[in-house]
Amino acid sequence: MTAISKLGEFSLIRHLTRDLKPCQPSTVYSVGDDAAVLNHGGKRTLVTTDLLLEGIHFNLEYVPLRHLGYKAVAVNVSDICAMNATPTQITIGLGVSSRFSVEDLEEFYVGARLACEHYKVDLVGGDTCASMNGLTIAITCLGVADEQDIVYRNGAKPNDLICVSGNLGSAYLGLQLLERELQVFRATQHDNLGKAAEHNDAIHEKFEGREYLLERQLKPEARIDIVEQLRKAGIKPTAMMDISDGLSSELFHICTQSKVGCDIYEDKLPIDYQAVALADEMNLNIVTCALNGGEDYELLFTCDIHDYEKLVPLDDVYIIGHITPAEYSSEQPEQPANLRLIPRTGDPLPLTAQGWNAFQQQQD
Amino acid sequence: MTAISKLGEFSLIRHLTRDLKPCQPSTVYSVGDDAAVLNHGGKRTLVTTDLLLEGIHFNLEYVPLRHLGYKAVAVNVSDICAMNATPTQITIGLGVSSRFSVEDLEEFYVGARLACEHYKVDLVGGDTCASMNGLTIAITCLGVADEQDIVYRNGAKPNDLICVSGNLGSAYLGLQLLERELQVFRATQHDNLGKAAEHNDAIHEKFEGREYLLERQLKPEARIDIVEQLRKAGIKPTAMMDISDGLSSELFHICTQSKVGCDIYEDKLPIDYQAVALADEMNLNIVTCALNGGEDYELLFTCDIHDYEKLVPLDDVYIIGHITPAEYSSEQPEQPANLRLIPRTGDPLPLTAQGWNAFQQQQD
Repeated sequence: MTAISKLGEFSLIRHLTRDLKPCQPSTVYSVGDDAAVLNHGGKRTLVTTDLLLEGIHFNLEYVPLRHLGYKAVAVNVSDICAMNATPTQITIGLGVSSRFSVEDLEEFYVGARLACEHYKVDLVGGDTCASMNGLTIAITCLGVADEQDIVYRNGAKPNDLICVSGNLGSAYLGLQLLERELQVFRATQHDNLGKAAEHNDAIHEKFEGREYLLERQLKPEARIDIVEQLRKAGIKPTAMMDISDGLSSELFHICTQSKVGCDIYEDKLPIDYQAVALADEMNLNIVTCALNGGEDYELLFTCDIHDYEKLVPLDDVYIIGHITPAEYSSEQPEQPANLRLIPRTGDPLPLTAQGWNAFQQQQD
Repeated sequence: MTAISKLGEFSLIRHLTRDLKPCQPSTVYSVGDDAAVLNHGGKRTLVTTDLLLEGIHFNLEYVPLRHLGYKAVAVNVSDICAMNATPTQITIGLGVSSRFSVEDLEEFYVGARLACEHYKVDLVGGDTCASMNGLTIAITCLGVADEQDIVYRNGAKPNDLICVSGNLGSAYLGLQLLERELQVFRATQHDNLGKAAEHNDAIHEKFEGREYLLERQLKPEARIDIVEQLRKAGIKPTAMMDISDGLSSELFHICTQSKVGCDIYEDKLPIDYQAVALADEMNLNIVTCALNGGEDYELLFTCDIHDYEKLVPLDDVYIIGHITPAEYSSEQPEQPANLRLIPRTGDPLPLTAQGWNAFQQQQD
């Protein structure tokens, strides 16, 4: 028997969905991008789905249910945005164990409905059922787009500019902060129950000046505003995806599917000053956080170099590098070998996709 | 705090999705039927989603993973059929704990892909991730239909004929048989490990002549053939849904949403002879099994009485009663009070929706 952790998430999905041959004429694009694309006449329908499991994707010790509801919607909306499409409908499946009350679920729904209103997405269905253990969330988001507007991962070509929205690494550092304070809180609870109130104050002090990082982790936003800006500016990216697993990992997807390499520049990576300060305090390399920290849900996209003049005026969009012709090694003939980080000084470094392998951390 | 078991599944979903106001013009029909209906131009797109959790919806002690994959697809396809639509695409989200191997997941996918081929549905996406405990399955099925063909739950009117496909109660009795033999197997394992092989033979004997009941439980089929027959015969049902929770429960949905009552006849309920024999052996009332046993995934539909001549020649379709004008009681002004079973002899009996409340059986 083969342990799933041996393959890892991406290989596992590739393995299970290999040789899939669509038979419906309405299936335009199947497995392999942020969303599938369907044609039921008229515009194209896009569909994406996500499973969020307690203990793997979220920790209710520090994630409020209301925020979790908001985030669950936002991250799926983000997948539709990453196809340059407009999110339109959502379904929510919830599995809840007996430790949750009706009021808990209401809190989750308050957050989910707030996100739906914010992104103008309709909640059109779902399934709520009992579970044996913990909270399970299954979200499916649908969207719509004209056929010619849809952007896949496979369209990047040499000389294209590589852009990201917002900044990178903040959500990861927000998570590190929450995890650190949780450990402190657990330890003090164990040592001295009487001093819990005092320690709570101490935690609040620790969070002061880091509110932005917490917000990036607890209440990420789908960059629907960037999709709108691009549309208004008359820019259609050549490839796009959202950054859920980390910049390096997403660059690997785009370069592999587009059959290209890339150069990105260390000094061009957009990083927030709160992230810099916390990384410094925690002895973390901020560039590593920006490259490999996940859950920013910013957009990563490539544009034709002729769009440069149109790109520059855009708000909160940063050019971080450019696409190069692919070079392949004999060991991995399917994966371009020349994904490079150009540091401030010194020689180019190979990018590594460190995507977190959750299968190595689980129990049963 | 309110325990979820107090509300039950249907009330909980109503509670959480109350006052939902769609804002997207493409949302044709939202929460409250077998599937939501969307209009992205051209034909209508339908979407339905289901969450299946280990220990709640299936027991891997007697459900082979291959069958589970098939069933997970079939029950979602069934929801699209129940809207009189054609299923077209599916997404599969899997959460798997470390006790599952790659080969286990392959088994699941063999079954799921077999069902996809059988129903001509394309697997277009999904999500496979680690879980802390057990197996989680989230399936979303999409379908397509011309607007005028879609059948909701709310169109039944007095004098309409009530029809079901196939037969009722078999899947429930298949489950009882599997549960009984599992208990026997567990007890013998505990008593005398050396005799396991002998007891396995004994179990096989117990299953002989009951293969049909096991198949109904382990490998149910979506009645896409009935939808095709109705289309060919030129019949558009006035209301339709699939029987997942049991006939009584589904009649309550149709009667409540259509604001009508119903009379169904005990002697018209289609029941398989294997089901009759097993119910007899297990001291179960076969009519109760047919009314309240779930998971048959047959279609329940109502037709205008003028379609009677067209209905009679249909294969595997049975007329079991008719719709009556609604009568309401002062205690429950939203739910028709006159849903009746007409027994072979004696006075009409009120139907009760005993829908299984999984929230009362869970642990954490």
